[in-house]
Amino acid sequence: MTATPTTLSPNGIPSNPPTTAPHWPRGFSSGGVAAGIKKPGVNDLALLFGNGEFGNGELSAAAVFTRNLIVAAPIQVSRANLAVSSARIRALIINSGCANAATGEEGLVRSRRTIESLAATLGVPSQSVLVNSTGVIGVQLPIDRIEKALPALKASLQPGSCETFARSIMTTDTRPKWASRIIRWMDGTTERTCTVTGVAKGAGMIHPNMATMISVIATDATLTPSELDGHLRSAVEQSFHRISVDGDTSTNDSVFALSSNCAGTVPPNQLALAFEAVAQELALMVVRDGEGFERGLEVRVQGGRTQSDALQVARTVAMSLLVRTAVTGGDPNWGRILAAAGRAGVELNPSTLRVSAGGIALFAAGEPTNADSVAVRRAFTADTVRIELDLAMGDASDVFWSCGLTKRYVEINADYTT
Amino acid sequence: MTATPTTLSPNGIPSNPPTTAPHWPRGFSSGGVAAGIKKPGVNDLALLFGNGEFGNGELSAAAVFTRNLIVAAPIQVSRANLAVSSARIRALIINSGCANAATGEEGLVRSRRTIESLAATLGVPSQSVLVNSTGVIGVQLPIDRIEKALPALKASLQPGSCETFARSIMTTDTRPKWASRIIRWMDGTTERTCTVTGVAKGAGMIHPNMATMISVIATDATLTPSELDGHLRSAVEQSFHRISVDGDTSTNDSVFALSSNCAGTVPPNQLALAFEAVAQELALMVVRDGEGFERGLEVRVQGGRTQSDALQVARTVAMSLLVRTAVTGGDPNWGRILAAAGRAGVELNPSTLRVSAGGIALFAAGEPTNADSVAVRRAFTADTVRIELDLAMGDASDVFWSCGLTKRYVEINADYTT
Repeated sequence: MTATPTTLSPNGIPSNPPTTAPHWPRGFSSGGVAAGIKKPGVNDLALLFGNGEFGNGELSAAAVFTRNLIVAAPIQVSRANLAVSSARIRALIINSGCANAATGEEGLVRSRRTIESLAATLGVPSQSVLVNSTGVIGVQLPIDRIEKALPALKASLQPGSCETFARSIMTTDTRPKWASRIIRWMDGTTERTCTVTGVAKGAGMIHPNMATMISVIATDATLTPSELDGHLRSAVEQSFHRISVDGDTSTNDSVFALSSNCAGTVPPNQLALAFEAVAQELALMVVRDGEGFERGLEVRVQGGRTQSDALQVARTVAMSLLVRTAVTGGDPNWGRILAAAGRAGVELNPSTLRVSAGGIALFAAGEPTNADSVAVRRAFTADTVRIELDLAMGDASDVFWSCGLTKRYVEINADYTT
Repeated sequence: MTATPTTLSPNGIPSNPPTTAPHWPRGFSSGGVAAGIKKPGVNDLALLFGNGEFGNGELSAAAVFTRNLIVAAPIQVSRANLAVSSARIRALIINSGCANAATGEEGLVRSRRTIESLAATLGVPSQSVLVNSTGVIGVQLPIDRIEKALPALKASLQPGSCETFARSIMTTDTRPKWASRIIRWMDGTTERTCTVTGVAKGAGMIHPNMATMISVIATDATLTPSELDGHLRSAVEQSFHRISVDGDTSTNDSVFALSSNCAGTVPPNQLALAFEAVAQELALMVVRDGEGFERGLEVRVQGGRTQSDALQVARTVAMSLLVRTAVTGGDPNWGRILAAAGRAGVELNPSTLRVSAGGIALFAAGEPTNADSVAVRRAFTADTVRIELDLAMGDASDVFWSCGLTKRYVEINADYTT
């Protein structure tokens, strides 16, 4: 397998992930156990560890955290450790079942204790551990249960499959999410390989919490933290920053990148493509596993005066409740697409604007095209509805993914549980 | 009845409108007929006319139109007439059943023909007629049916009740919407009165259209067009610009104000309060008649650094899908409120931020308050859920109204009809 050269998935939102979990890159071990934070017997503690297979186990680290101003305790603590360690770490621990958000000073104390106890268990400096949490908001982290589970968590570590880790960070996800690319290149006469493997947990509601998105992308490419950060930010920009299910960002959202530096210097273009492909596959799996998902929505905008204009129109159309309900209904309602574009806050010329769906023009030259209704209906009942807008104002283009808004989404999120 | 001195309704979203329709102010006649634009026998053409009861029938006019860049033909034509006539007009005609939006050059021709034919029927200059349309997008206006109905429309004109007019502009509204205030003041030893009466049609989906909101507010106060414009803009800012059901603005949204100048100079403060009260009552009726409405949502923010900050937080919380589904479920999910506030793009201090509902503190000093769960549940199952946020950053406050997002909303809007 080689890195797919497309940066923006040409095939819409992918259906199920591959059934067999890919391997983490060389230099990583992972594990997961049930600590009793969620219901008994369900894995809720995950660990990714630099195992030193080909070196000292030190990992380069980078992270993109939530832009929400209400930031959960583990993110505050991880941010501090990234700074203190100069982004050279050994381990990342994630618990599900409790977000440790809106927990005040005591929340910070418990996140720090998680880090210190794990560092002691693994025999590494506490500044070399990162942490995140996902689950209920406003409830203190059951730190005793976590500490009790740490020896078993350490014992569960093994190289290879990412499956246990991916499953241990799930909340109301209906399936684990993973994606991987292997890059091959010639170093003189020697063929060399590098792996980029990512996992994610997606939009899932846990009372009284909102969706939290966490992703971890690991590679064995040799990269300084700053190089890794560049690859991560560019990949996130093309993936996780281009999707929406709720329109809400959570207190715990984060994407981590870690490199074990075993594979040597990888051709940067190939590595960038692999990062983008993995991040994009994961992001679209998060959309597909969004609550009440029935049909995907992809909005591509071209002809923008600037990229920011193109993105703004794509995002506004993709997030419009009226467009999203029309997608659910398989309803070729181009009037709603037009109205959403018109309120995007971007200069538009209604007489040159073109709106298409699945390649069929619906609106052009200021008027409906009266396209063949059977073909149009087919475009709106596809597994992923692809809407295209040509603003005819310039050369910039962008894309945004969402999904139809469904009754099931409302049902899940309106469901009162105490 | 006197103008209510409250500018921001203290009683949340009002329930049903008064069952008896109020009267238009002096100097106005109105009518409505079935022109066959909607299904046979249903009124779809409405006319408001300066009848010259106490003068020449000239009305001062003002309007606030949609901010959407895709603007329907009738709005373009009305805007031009407002300019040409220096906002001194005689009549406003509104049809329901067809929005005349996204109809290109031909749409403009048909809106102009509506105006010219009505002007001829009424014997007034064509520049003194305003027009708007609401209904299906992308379908040409059935101008022949409209022209055929104009004599009957003229014949239906009578002073008094606003009921026929209010019913004739309805689309999928489940009930007509009207509100009225009478202002009384002493002019020396003479008691004088002035009336402000408004009607509205609200969020209703007509395939392939989005919600269109149209409101008309009339008064007999003596006002220049510019004074009338000032009252209208200030009232709209406190009402229609503070509500959301869809998050979408339509191609035809508009609020018209007309004054017949029969009542003399009204104390400006009392007039401003009456305008605000009428506009706010109408706006909240639009919310209450929003598709799938089950429960209202009022978000009040105080302690903002600036009013724009306070409004931004109120709007973001009120429009959050996760908050709105929690409201539907009667779910005291303060975590979602916090997260929405945190992504509003406004400086916040999580450790001083307070979140309450129905007067009960839920989150303060960076932590949940562990308020009495029965009382909290009661606050979240009220007819209108009232959320209060104190940002503790300054003195600015604002309010925004919305409603729970329901399965019925999705059902109505996902319903495919050809």
